[in-house]
Amino acid sequence: MKLLEDRIRQDGIIEDGDVLKVDSFLNHQMDVELFARMGEEWARLYQGEDINKILTIEASGIGIACIAAQSFHVPVVFAKKSKSKNIAGDVYTAKVESFTHGKVYDIMVSKRFLRPTDRVLILDDFLANGAALKGLIELVRQAGATVVGAGIAVEKAFQPGGDLIRSMGIRVESLARVKSMSPEQGIEFC
Amino acid sequence: MKLLEDRIRQDGIIEDGDVLKVDSFLNHQMDVELFARMGEEWARLYQGEDINKILTIEASGIGIACIAAQSFHVPVVFAKKSKSKNIAGDVYTAKVESFTHGKVYDIMVSKRFLRPTDRVLILDDFLANGAALKGLIELVRQAGATVVGAGIAVEKAFQPGGDLIRSMGIRVESLARVKSMSPEQGIEFC
Repeated sequence: MKLLEDRIRQDGIIEDGDVLKVDSFLNHQMDVELFARMGEEWARLYQGEDINKILTIEASGIGIACIAAQSFHVPVVFAKKSKSKNIAGDVYTAKVESFTHGKVYDIMVSKRFLRPTDRVLILDDFLANGAALKGLIELVRQAGATVVGAGIAVEKAFQPGGDLIRSMGIRVESLARVKSMSPEQGIEFC
Repeated sequence: MKLLEDRIRQDGIIEDGDVLKVDSFLNHQMDVELFARMGEEWARLYQGEDINKILTIEASGIGIACIAAQSFHVPVVFAKKSKSKNIAGDVYTAKVESFTHGKVYDIMVSKRFLRPTDRVLILDDFLANGAALKGLIELVRQAGATVVGAGIAVEKAFQPGGDLIRSMGIRVESLARVKSMSPEQGIEFC
């Protein structure tokens, strides 16, 4: 999606260690007008797929998912990262290994909000190693629901997550796919 | 706001210990059409206030804030609850005592996203003891920016947060103010 690629070129900051900072418009400060265009694009890509629920994960996926959900006219559910007193009763859980934070954590969704009849689109801001996305897919499958696909804002195509998820038979639509990047050479998209 | 009160009456679950569960539409599964109506109401209430930024806190404030921001045509910034490798450099920080989780945690916002000229509306899903809101106000004031007011979805008016924040001279617009509630008697709004 040219609009997103242009914005990453303009406002993204590339740091050592394959870090792409897009926190001025995507995952700390958030440009909701941009999110609306991204939502329209996913709605176009997944047209006719009868998606009735969007699943994401806290925290930085939530804004993108909520704005995008307006183009699908469906509710959003977000997976939580730690056991809270406010999630009572039965939950689906999966383990996720965070490469950013260097630890393993549990994600969970109340069983009330994922049903076998659900046709779920998973949305998230980044796809790198695929750990979070794999965990979200596991939650949907535990519920006996269908993963229609995943919508990702920024895929680091030089990391293994995209291949991993696609090899599971999951459709992945990434709006910007980074082929390579470095502080010296800048960024190249696929 | 009658629409929100009706929805709480219909789908909210009152549990012992002053717990109001609204996780089927507000803070786990999220009804984005409802959020849009709430955003329009805050935009009406704060009309003419020249708000140029919305501040919220992860995780459950983000969806409400992003959808509401579309009625203000401004970006959203969310405060983060723990130090992440992705927030590099200078941040404003405040301490928040969580009554839900029984611990004190730090919240932070990158200094790049709060400026002295900003006129900030703070949005969140709940106001009970006012701890999170107080922390968010502190972040804005550290930046030398102006807190125009706060927009809250559900205020537990029988808890001290609303009085505390209003006594600081902050305008608080809560769309549903719970006067009392119990599993036996149901819910009464102010």
